[in-house]
Amino acid sequence: MFTSQTKVRVRYAHTDQMGYVYYGNYAAFFEIARIESLRSIGLSYKELEAAGIMMPVYENYSRYIAPAGFDELLIIKVFIKELPSVKITFHYEIYNEAAQLIHTGHTVLVFINRESRRPCRAPWQIVEALKPYFSA
Amino acid sequence: MFTSQTKVRVRYAHTDQMGYVYYGNYAAFFEIARIESLRSIGLSYKELEAAGIMMPVYENYSRYIAPAGFDELLIIKVFIKELPSVKITFHYEIYNEAAQLIHTGHTVLVFINRESRRPCRAPWQIVEALKPYFSA
Amino acid sequence: MFTSQTKVRVRYAHTDQMGYVYYGNYAAFFEIARIESLRSIGLSYKELEAAGIMMPVYENYSRYIAPAGFDELLIIKVFIKELPSVKITFHYEIYNEAAQLIHTGHTVLVFINRESRRPCRAPWQIVEALKPYFSA
Amino acid sequence: MFTSQTKVRVRYAHTDQMGYVYYGNYAAFFEIARIESLRSIGLSYKELEAAGIMMPVYENYSRYIAPAGFDELLIIKVFIKELPSVKITFHYEIYNEAAQLIHTGHTVLVFINRESRRPCRAPWQIVEALKPYFSA
Repeated sequence: MFTSQTKVRVRYAHTDQMGYVYYGNYAAFFEIARIESLRSIGLSYKELEAAGIMMPVYENYSRYIAPAGFDELLIIKVFIKELPSVKITFHYEIYNEAAQLIHTGHTVLVFINRESRRPCRAPWQIVEALKPYFSA
Repeated sequence: MFTSQTKVRVRYAHTDQMGYVYYGNYAAFFEIARIESLRSIGLSYKELEAAGIMMPVYENYSRYIAPAGFDELLIIKVFIKELPSVKITFHYEIYNEAAQLIHTGHTVLVFINRESRRPCRAPWQIVEALKPYFSA
Repeated sequence: MFTSQTKVRVRYAHTDQMGYVYYGNYAAFFEIARIESLRSIGLSYKELEAAGIMMPVYENYSRYIAPAGFDELLIIKVFIKELPSVKITFHYEIYNEAAQLIHTGHTVLVFINRESRRPCRAPWQIVEALKPYFSA
Repeated sequence: MFTSQTKVRVRYAHTDQMGYVYYGNYAAFFEIARIESLRSIGLSYKELEAAGIMMPVYENYSRYIAPAGFDELLIIKVFIKELPSVKITFHYEIYNEAAQLIHTGHTVLVFINRESRRPCRAPWQIVEALKPYFSA
């Protein structure tokens, strides 16, 4: 299993009038966690796109356990539990500054060849970078 | 079962560099659909809040079937399949201008008494307004 | 002078923990007002883009007079005071449900030829559609 | 004069279909720069709010010189050119990874006493922290 973690600061722009992070903003937090977790193993999402691979989202799930407040420095733990095939699933756990688990979720992305606009298998760059975490 | 539908125009602000609606913006579309579906049966979410009822989101799920493009006028169908108890679940189907189903999802919200900050049962205003759709 | 008006409903997603519309969301309201004001005279921004014209923003200004609250139905008045040349300026006045002026601003956009990526004059579609409002 | 600088990574969520940061997202970048510049001299905006001081935005201006692309690490330089009185003005310069100036702007915020909801002078915490940068 591959794990990684990223910090995200809650901004005023993220809050709503209930006084906490708007429920729709967790997807953007997930995006940050995905991009940074890939970067941590030398993968640039930008370069993958430049290489002709698109990764549209297929499914996204959020479970709101406790709210997050303005200026909190959240920790997002990312888990990839299976080597990607035609799709890749990122699981998340978000912790607040008091180390309390406040949010869980996951996102499934598929691989699309930009030229053919058709689904394809995970690019070798991703498979090679993740393989060491899944060796027997 | 209660059903309702709302139209939402895709704005430039909703798109991302893939050329379609950013995956994180569907939650805001769902919010519009919830608020407007309640309004269609005489319920104002704003007045519910003023009456001391808060409805934080407990769970949110999105399934991305096909992308939505700038300036498309989407139709969001809302379904409430069960009379709310301590929670209420909104199901959604989003259709594009070609009447193609492009997105499904659901949101579970809980009822919180603002004073006690504790979960409570669905307020009578909501139950009364929805009951006619669930009579035997 | 060309004038037009558009309604925008304030959503939960627009608010922040101060209880009003987040200051950064007025730019998206301006975008809606621009697109709809052009549509009101038969101009589709989407079709202009498809025809190879891009209109990046050059300057944006907002003056916050009074806040806007959740679920308010705002009226955005748009004013084009000069026939566009190499740029087009939209002026805005936003009114709340009590007909109080709560916000003013303007946006300057330039015309870019998508192929050459260079500035160009206002496309004939826009000039023709606006001319009747500026005849002597 | 007080100066400070903050880094902001461009996220997919910030981009639009033109392939660059959506014009409305610079205000949120400005917010990050303001909050972090205050933090750099020991000021917590969150604590200022907790102490009863609100700082709504009065005016915001953006000048778009060149676009910013996905995954770029932008540098936002903040300048406070005058000791705050009844208002405070933050000036910004945003540079891309190639050290090119791509954006300038400013935000004027006013001080409001939360209890009275009336304008007030800059709180002593801010004045004391900034004074050293304005001594003769």
